[in-house]
Amino acid sequence: MGKRLGKQTIMFSNSAKIIGNYSIVGEKEGNGTFREYYDYVLKNDTFGEKTYESAERKLIEHSIANALDNAGVKSKDLDLLICGDLLNQIISSSFAARDFDLTFLGLYGACSTMAEALAVGATFIDGGYFNTIACATGSHFSTVERQYRFPLELGNQRPPVSQWTVTGAGCTVLSDKGSKKEIVNATFGKVTDFGINDVNNMGAAMAPAAMSTLITHFEDTHTTPDDYDLIVTGDLGKLGSEILLDLMEHKGYKLKDNYNDCGQMIYSNDQKVYQGGSGCGCSAVVLNSYIMQKIDEGVYKRVLFAATGALLSTLSSQQGNTIPGICHAVEIRKGD
Amino acid sequence: MGKRLGKQTIMFSNSAKIIGNYSIVGEKEGNGTFREYYDYVLKNDTFGEKTYESAERKLIEHSIANALDNAGVKSKDLDLLICGDLLNQIISSSFAARDFDLTFLGLYGACSTMAEALAVGATFIDGGYFNTIACATGSHFSTVERQYRFPLELGNQRPPVSQWTVTGAGCTVLSDKGSKKEIVNATFGKVTDFGINDVNNMGAAMAPAAMSTLITHFEDTHTTPDDYDLIVTGDLGKLGSEILLDLMEHKGYKLKDNYNDCGQMIYSNDQKVYQGGSGCGCSAVVLNSYIMQKIDEGVYKRVLFAATGALLSTLSSQQGNTIPGICHAVEIRKGD
Repeated sequence: MGKRLGKQTIMFSNSAKIIGNYSIVGEKEGNGTFREYYDYVLKNDTFGEKTYESAERKLIEHSIANALDNAGVKSKDLDLLICGDLLNQIISSSFAARDFDLTFLGLYGACSTMAEALAVGATFIDGGYFNTIACATGSHFSTVERQYRFPLELGNQRPPVSQWTVTGAGCTVLSDKGSKKEIVNATFGKVTDFGINDVNNMGAAMAPAAMSTLITHFEDTHTTPDDYDLIVTGDLGKLGSEILLDLMEHKGYKLKDNYNDCGQMIYSNDQKVYQGGSGCGCSAVVLNSYIMQKIDEGVYKRVLFAATGALLSTLSSQQGNTIPGICHAVEIRKGD
Repeated sequence: MGKRLGKQTIMFSNSAKIIGNYSIVGEKEGNGTFREYYDYVLKNDTFGEKTYESAERKLIEHSIANALDNAGVKSKDLDLLICGDLLNQIISSSFAARDFDLTFLGLYGACSTMAEALAVGATFIDGGYFNTIACATGSHFSTVERQYRFPLELGNQRPPVSQWTVTGAGCTVLSDKGSKKEIVNATFGKVTDFGINDVNNMGAAMAPAAMSTLITHFEDTHTTPDDYDLIVTGDLGKLGSEILLDLMEHKGYKLKDNYNDCGQMIYSNDQKVYQGGSGCGCSAVVLNSYIMQKIDEGVYKRVLFAATGALLSTLSSQQGNTIPGICHAVEIRKGD
């Protein structure tokens, strides 16, 4: 059984094995950087549903069903589904869970949800409480845009610091056995707030949380950034990633070429999305496509996946509150 | 270390000890059934804040700070805060967590949150991953009413099947040692939907989830309802509780005088709240006042606390969806 290092990190001894994963994305994402890595690219972003919210629920359902297929696990043999999303009252996750008749743990960590779910799931596996757990999340450009910002019909201009919410969902299946790809530790994050109140500048709001969790992780595990083949944040975007690099350098940590950000990577330069991608789906689909494949290929042996979330609501911002952020991290390794 | 019984229940061997708890409620609740059991009753439901949302955040903060005081734990010595609430993007919980500088796990389980947090927290304590964990949640009549239903200024009539959202917050502090009052097992729930779509009739929507989790719990632990001094659901209200009793009887389980519901109990009969109380705060304050005190006094030696949640959003209902429910349960025992 694992043990805690420092205040926030758990080093596992019965590491959760990653036995299956799946990614599904919208057309825009399918035309982005990782086009050949996704399992499924939608032709139509309603996915055959009447509402965008139903489409988001279906994206999550589809990712869970197919990740289980990839893992060779029948849904009746799955012990637990850990899931969350950005919509009010995480309806996409709850409604997806309903259709599987599964034991369900609902989380809310905004865009940190993929890492939060993996951290909780890996802890439950390490302790032997559950044998097989699916961790999933997703987002949809049109649901998030109209919930958090403006009606889609308004077609409003986007500020240059903005990011584009990823349409997509990803699912990772964890088990107590069956793979050499495993989650070896998890660092649970603190809520961090540097006083940013620009709801279009999520990267700046979340970068301090990423700094807090990364530094805590390095200290707790006695590692340095150089020990990792890839350190990847969730959806800081280009500006947020630059802010993180600055913050880390001020604290004496120089992140180099082995650092990147899912939001920064996911779209190609000609896609006009300003700072890049965001949303729960952003880090979920990049992790469960490109990153997992590169781990399988042996390109990355040691990956620190640190997804960040901005903990605001439309109401909290309307009432003049700043935007707290959180970042949870898991280390994924591939044994020989 | 604990082990799983059946598919959904974990029987702990290093049971989480309940070393502190606290309840704070609004004036209406302070005039209800458990008036002499609450730690603090507000005189003004804004709690000195400018918005009801800030008041809700402050209720949760206040309950955490004072539960820690009661437990004799300094906030810097607390390992983890597990918290969630009903507001969009659980802002009350995230904003409360920010002010404590604590490692934070955000949950969403609607009104099942108190039980969900205790189930996850007790599992983390059993595994030795964290030594001291605070589990908290709360709700506020005015925030919930205006988010889910109508503007407060409208003063609309309430249908006879409706419940009244509790203004209040509760916090339970768990530890690996220090008390004879402990959480001995937890049953994680499934999302259950019997097709109810009346957003005023939450009790009917949640009763099937309560049935599912209670029966699973009895089967997994080889117990019967008679083994418990108190079986208490979260906020089914009067009608929902009657539906649960019917559903259970159809399945061969006769719940008797040892069954009750926090929503049914919390207000006195002259308070004109129709079916009773609801909201995350409902089961949180009843557990952390009356129930905990009766356990301390030895009146209840074995309590099954099964909080239920209705997993809807305003949008999911507007789009014609039914209302899924979930119920998580923990068994609390007091040793001699």
